[in-house]
Amino acid sequence: MAQIGFIGLGHMGQPMVCNLIKTGHQVLVFDLNEVAMQSAITLGAKAASSVAELSAASDVIFTMVQTGEQVSQLCLGEHGIFANAKPNSLYIDSSSIDVETSRELHLQAQENEIDMLDAPVSGGVKGAETASLAIMVGGDEAVFERAKPYLNCLGKNIVHAGAAGNGQVAKICNNMILAISMIGISESFNLAEKLGLPAKKLFEISSKASGQCWAMTSYSPVPDCVDNVPSNNDYKPGFTAQMMLKDLNLSQAAANTAELKTGLGAQATKIYQEFVESGHGDVDFSGIIEMLKLKTER
Amino acid sequence: MAQIGFIGLGHMGQPMVCNLIKTGHQVLVFDLNEVAMQSAITLGAKAASSVAELSAASDVIFTMVQTGEQVSQLCLGEHGIFANAKPNSLYIDSSSIDVETSRELHLQAQENEIDMLDAPVSGGVKGAETASLAIMVGGDEAVFERAKPYLNCLGKNIVHAGAAGNGQVAKICNNMILAISMIGISESFNLAEKLGLPAKKLFEISSKASGQCWAMTSYSPVPDCVDNVPSNNDYKPGFTAQMMLKDLNLSQAAANTAELKTGLGAQATKIYQEFVESGHGDVDFSGIIEMLKLKTER
Repeated sequence: MAQIGFIGLGHMGQPMVCNLIKTGHQVLVFDLNEVAMQSAITLGAKAASSVAELSAASDVIFTMVQTGEQVSQLCLGEHGIFANAKPNSLYIDSSSIDVETSRELHLQAQENEIDMLDAPVSGGVKGAETASLAIMVGGDEAVFERAKPYLNCLGKNIVHAGAAGNGQVAKICNNMILAISMIGISESFNLAEKLGLPAKKLFEISSKASGQCWAMTSYSPVPDCVDNVPSNNDYKPGFTAQMMLKDLNLSQAAANTAELKTGLGAQATKIYQEFVESGHGDVDFSGIIEMLKLKTER
Repeated sequence: MAQIGFIGLGHMGQPMVCNLIKTGHQVLVFDLNEVAMQSAITLGAKAASSVAELSAASDVIFTMVQTGEQVSQLCLGEHGIFANAKPNSLYIDSSSIDVETSRELHLQAQENEIDMLDAPVSGGVKGAETASLAIMVGGDEAVFERAKPYLNCLGKNIVHAGAAGNGQVAKICNNMILAISMIGISESFNLAEKLGLPAKKLFEISSKASGQCWAMTSYSPVPDCVDNVPSNNDYKPGFTAQMMLKDLNLSQAAANTAELKTGLGAQATKIYQEFVESGHGDVDFSGIIEMLKLKTER
């Protein structure tokens, strides 16, 4: 089994490390948060004292952090991953970051003879815990094949989206659709209710009609329509509004770079921004239906 | 078999009449358009010389016209359906019209001892031709049961949405979701392409992920992803942009009445308005993806 290095032990990183250990891998971990480090050690991971040490000792290195800037800081510079990893190491960035930074890092990795993939995930904490994440992967086909045994420990629906950065593109485009769908069905459920058609009845009808979407039939924002979804549990996440806003901001940054106007994408971003700014960042993203009920001005 | 009266022999009405005749009913028809009348007679219908004559001679009366105003004109007044139909006649309005007018007509029907249903359809001309329309029905449960044998001649997914007007509510809310989904996936497919991820690849990924929706997996605006859809045939309808705009305008009128702001619904309406005003009213509504490709300003 390979020696794996894992940097970033947050809500997602922690259960991912746990699944790598469960499948027999040795995992060396690093995080600035001491509590997170202790808890990974309890799970059976070993502590590295620095990014450089972890990089030098590992065959496969994962990062799972918040922003493109953080990933760059981890990768670059004399104490970073690229300067310290063994030649031909495999580096997998599972963070959701902007496409430009990801592609820039792919170039740098190549110069350092490191095989890099961008491999952002979806499925949330639950998906991470149950090793059923969807993983969208960008990078060379051969590197994707090399990484599969490790990615298979973490997720179920693992897709090669194409060249460098395409994993990030797939993730932000998919999540832009998801955000738009969630707001669209929420507005429609609320409108139906106001007009005397119970939301549950619209669910029954539209879930078998042309309004069907994953946001409705697998993640209904109306309680008691679908089993085991946050709306049944007072909108406890799940996938927080804050995380959805992050992905929407990435989509809008990418749209800006691409000089493409995405009207509904931009509007959805504003709506989630308002939700987060009104103190609901930690609420599940399907909780937006409650805010939209209150939009009574025309 | 019942004597059926059918008013409105357009693209939808014509094949609906055909299916009623096929299932053994006698159908008396009326339309101001002489050509449409002749073609229905060729199918085996009989011509009525007026709405009043048709109403007096029928057990079941259908209307399938464009606007609430047209339906009101057909129903009300001394030459209208309500004044001339036999007591306890069954009146089914399959037009897609505004909720307020529909509910007002239900009240008038009741005063005239006529059993009314609002029963707008979806599935387009193809659905009408193949008797596979989805039909969303508002009105009393007992009247719905009474109408089922006739509706079964026309469609497959026939749902009782509740009281008077709820068929119209279900239709406009469902179609508002559909329009938002179609624009949302179009923006995302276009963004993916601009960022170097082929739209077909995003289709492959999102159709099995949280971005999945009917607009994608049953009606893809990207050609050659799904069989038998307008995008494969140069966006020939199908369901025209003009008809989608009509339903969106109904949704916004209803939102106005209900004093609910539907941000994405309003934005989707503007976008289809622009598409129609630029001369694409007769294009399939999935053709919006082409217009959205050109939105390069930020």
